Amino acid sequence: MHQCECNSRCLFPQMQMRFDGLLGFPGGFVNLQKETLETGLSRELWEELGVAIPISVEDHVVSCLAPALFSSTSSSCLITHLYVKRMEEEQILEVERAAASTAKDHGHEVLGMIRVPLYTIKGEGGLASFLSHSFIGNARSQLVESLLQSYMPATSQGLPITAHAYNLCPFT
Amino acid sequence: MHQCECNSRCLFPQMQMRFDGLLGFPGGFVNLQKETLETGLSRELWEELGVAIPISVEDHVVSCLAPALFSSTSSSCLITHLYVKRMEEEQILEVERAAASTAKDHGHEVLGMIRVPLYTIKGEGGLASFLSHSFIGNARSQLVESLLQSYMPATSQGLPITAHAYNLCPFT
Repeated sequence: MHQCECNSRCLFPQMQMRFDGLLGFPGGFVNLQKETLETGLSRELWEELGVAIPISVEDHVVSCLAPALFSSTSSSCLITHLYVKRMEEEQILEVERAAASTAKDHGHEVLGMIRVPLYTIKGEGGLASFLSHSFIGNARSQLVESLLQSYMPATSQGLPITAHAYNLCPFT
Repeated sequence: MHQCECNSRCLFPQMQMRFDGLLGFPGGFVNLQKETLETGLSRELWEELGVAIPISVEDHVVSCLAPALFSSTSSSCLITHLYVKRMEEEQILEVERAAASTAKDHGHEVLGMIRVPLYTIKGEGGLASFLSHSFIGNARSQLVESLLQSYMPATSQGLPITAHAYNLCPFT
């Protein structure tokens, strides 16, 4: 067992190992001429996680231009839209089970779901080690942003949440 | 969808996100005064993966001294023993489902199971990106070792295998 310096009730945002070997959030591209950001995000989540997760504009946290590394895969200028969906622990467990069994993209677009360790171990392990991994685009800064903006109130409320922060990239 | 330069039948070793935020293989410590390496490994797999996986001496690949970073957690000199268990795709899917649902260590010792991408994307993504992550001890070199020693014959036979390469560390 590990020694955990977290609060009594550990919280756990979720990320995924992507097909390209990098860490990132569930999500994908949205064509705004065919669907809204929220509808497109729900569609992507269904494909990647295997569960229906309704997304509303209230879940939106921040939007920003995608970094060059990320946008180089497209000739268009990309904007990433970060959403955070709060969930109870049982809902998160349901997502993890479905993502490893019924999700269409399991083993293809998504190589596995993981929890982000929101604690430190002897001052260096846990979140610090996790942030040293390789992330797609600006996913690392998005994770930190979502923690700063969304986790703090949740912690005070004692609610477990999942930082399902989604990259939604409109084509134009 | 991603462009995959792998062979027609993609293979996928499995690793895990550990409680300390680093990537590693399933496994753990074994007290040789109480159990054999193989019995101890099967016990650890049951705890971390939620399925019974019999391990035999024939699955052993290589043993080596644990690096200083890894052994610093113990006052004893540690030896890591690498095993590779070959599995059919359906068995791997069963492991992934159980690891995300019934495994005792899910959400504690293990933050999620992931597949290793054994392909390249545009010459840089896939396995190359994956190897840039942060690993516990000598897990990165163990992964490469297991691929060199075990994957090549398996590829020629067309068998999907899982590089369940396990760290087993006897106390003495």
